Amino acid sequence: MIRADRLITDCRLATMLEGGEAYGAVEDGAILIRDGDIAWVGARADLPAHEAAQVDRLDGRWVTPGLIDCHTHLVFGGDRSGEFEQRLGGATYEEIARAGGGIVSSVRMTREASEDDLVASALKRLAGLKASGVTTVEIKSGYGLDRDSELKMLRAARRVGAEGGVRVATSYLGLHAVPPEFREDRAAYVDLAVDEILPAAHAEGLVDAVDAYCEPIAFSTDEVGRLFEKAKSLGLPVKLHADQLSNGGGAALAARYGALSADHIEYADEAGIAAMAKAGVVAVLLPGAFLMLREETPPPIQTLRGHGVSMAVATDCNPGTSPVASMLAAMTLACVQFRLTPEEVLAGATRHAAKALGMADRIGTLETGKAADLAVWDINRPAELCYWLGAPLLYGRYRNGQPD
Amino acid sequence: MIRADRLITDCRLATMLEGGEAYGAVEDGAILIRDGDIAWVGARADLPAHEAAQVDRLDGRWVTPGLIDCHTHLVFGGDRSGEFEQRLGGATYEEIARAGGGIVSSVRMTREASEDDLVASALKRLAGLKASGVTTVEIKSGYGLDRDSELKMLRAARRVGAEGGVRVATSYLGLHAVPPEFREDRAAYVDLAVDEILPAAHAEGLVDAVDAYCEPIAFSTDEVGRLFEKAKSLGLPVKLHADQLSNGGGAALAARYGALSADHIEYADEAGIAAMAKAGVVAVLLPGAFLMLREETPPPIQTLRGHGVSMAVATDCNPGTSPVASMLAAMTLACVQFRLTPEEVLAGATRHAAKALGMADRIGTLETGKAADLAVWDINRPAELCYWLGAPLLYGRYRNGQPD
Ligand SMILES: [Zn+2]
Ligand SMILES: [Zn+2]
Repeated sequence: MIRADRLITDCRLATMLEGGEAYGAVEDGAILIRDGDIAWVGARADLPAHEAAQVDRLDGRWVTPGLIDCHTHLVFGGDRSGEFEQRLGGATYEEIARAGGGIVSSVRMTREASEDDLVASALKRLAGLKASGVTTVEIKSGYGLDRDSELKMLRAARRVGAEGGVRVATSYLGLHAVPPEFREDRAAYVDLAVDEILPAAHAEGLVDAVDAYCEPIAFSTDEVGRLFEKAKSLGLPVKLHADQLSNGGGAALAARYGALSADHIEYADEAGIAAMAKAGVVAVLLPGAFLMLREETPPPIQTLRGHGVSMAVATDCNPGTSPVASMLAAMTLACVQFRLTPEEVLAGATRHAAKALGMADRIGTLETGKAADLAVWDINRPAELCYWLGAPLLYGRYRNGQPD
Repeated sequence: MIRADRLITDCRLATMLEGGEAYGAVEDGAILIRDGDIAWVGARADLPAHEAAQVDRLDGRWVTPGLIDCHTHLVFGGDRSGEFEQRLGGATYEEIARAGGGIVSSVRMTREASEDDLVASALKRLAGLKASGVTTVEIKSGYGLDRDSELKMLRAARRVGAEGGVRVATSYLGLHAVPPEFREDRAAYVDLAVDEILPAAHAEGLVDAVDAYCEPIAFSTDEVGRLFEKAKSLGLPVKLHADQLSNGGGAALAARYGALSADHIEYADEAGIAAMAKAGVVAVLLPGAFLMLREETPPPIQTLRGHGVSMAVATDCNPGTSPVASMLAAMTLACVQFRLTPEEVLAGATRHAAKALGMADRIGTLETGKAADLAVWDINRPAELCYWLGAPLLYGRYRNGQPD
């Protein structure tokens, strides 16, 4: 006899478990929830003896794991819509940079913003993610680039979780850009980020993982290596913005450090991907930035498939290269631009995204013992989640077993 | 003294009037509404003497004309997400066609659907459009392709307007595809569409304009010419799916008949565009289909600009090539893919879209005497409407002066 807080029934399940039906589908399913976790899930015909304080009948709707957006820069000051407009009006990147635009303008606006401002603006964008079925969001720092501002961003990220009703995983992204005041002495900035800001943020419990932007225009593999050694000494997992614009050995570096994920990886080579596969590094694919930057080289999907690398999909929500605040939009773009199948994409927004956050034991599939974070959809088949762009498909969400 | 039903104040206006500020902007504006129309609009400082039964203060939010989606196939039976999935799984177009897929499957599902079914499923998609600020939608027939089914679609379209709370303009698109039962005798189908279905639909008041799909794989300029002559004799305006996949002289044909619009026109040549300009034909650009079909030749924007052709932007919401149910998503795609400026795109979703529907006297700008169809936005500058993808920017809508 299972004593449950809630029975969810009369629904179709995309459990996203591997090895069985496509999408791990159960045509006539049921879920028992107790203390916020899934106490039992399976075919309604197999329901064990139970008592349930509450019964939710879903009229045949589809239930998936709550979606996981495993790569965002959701917290930032201001926005860059003005720059977007100037660029479309014909301004060059150089003209915009000379006028104070580009990432430094986000750094300036983030430093100027109060923590409350940052939380308020991030919650607006979070509303878009939640409306697209998201129950877990990763949020990076990296627009503060000084000690106080980086900590302010990470505190804001924690509050976004508490006030926004989603699970939040934070990443410290001190090595995102060299801040203006260190332009003449980048080594000093790397020292500051590695030796001072990261330990301070970690001491406050603000860091779930450590990230960096590894690219010739950003930080070298040596600089990132220093950061990753520090992360290791603090017992923190790492992840990496890797090989987005060129093959800089980012995928291989991520593999060497057993990173949770290597993200973007448009230009990763086969050796790097083989190393990722061996080290269990998830490839996080970011089709929003691909669209907005009008990139022409997609990530090497066939090579990733061939090596059995887990592929996640995320919005990369950020003010410069991916002002995307809908997980479903990112999923559609992943199908259309990268030719992933809807099943691969949904796995990338659930099971593999959980792995990319080191949270595969708690979320990402409909499985007994995991958190009852669920999304309920007004659709007839899971592929519709990727097929429609902008249609309101979400019927509701559960987080820790509670309807939202 | 203006006796108004409503004063809208403490807002910024994008009137979309030409010739003044970008976006026709008024920084501190006000609108008086009487009997569903705009009785006065301008700078708050210039407000004339008035009494208003109701005052709405918008805390500095932006007000634009309600958005107009001037090209949709919103009414259809079923969907084609299964086909979308098969194609991404590697199936060829031929394999899908052999399995009964493609447009004929939409025809089959539309014929099988009841009028109530068609209304219900269209209302779901309409919810996406409304959430993106739409107050007017054009809806085409063209998946029925027999008399009863075409009329059923057009009646459903009228009901979508009445039940969905939006202004609807219908287009009869009998020459969309040759239905399966006429595959051996296309001339007989053209006769049926021109001589029987169109007059019947018109007699029931179901037709606001007449459309056709002019393309080597669809209907020839001669066949379309026959239809357009009939439309002329019935006093109905025409529009055309033209030059999407090849230059088939569609733009020139549209100009010859003084069409409201020529839509798609990726392959229109300069002569065709010059003719459009001379005849006042609006170019309706459809970036959703461009994305989904992975087209590589964008419409000739510079030529259109050079000739001063009005450019509208629409979703083309349809089950095959553009399952896009958000006007804001179409607007973002128009900027990113076609390099239109945000101001061009917003004009394309308001002023020019109204012209494409022959409704420029009633909607499309914030102007005294026009309907008070408004969208209110949680943004700091109009460019944000194009910059964000999937963010919930809409604060509210007014239709005929009534909040929604
Ligand atoms: Zn990123
Ligand atoms: Zn169309």
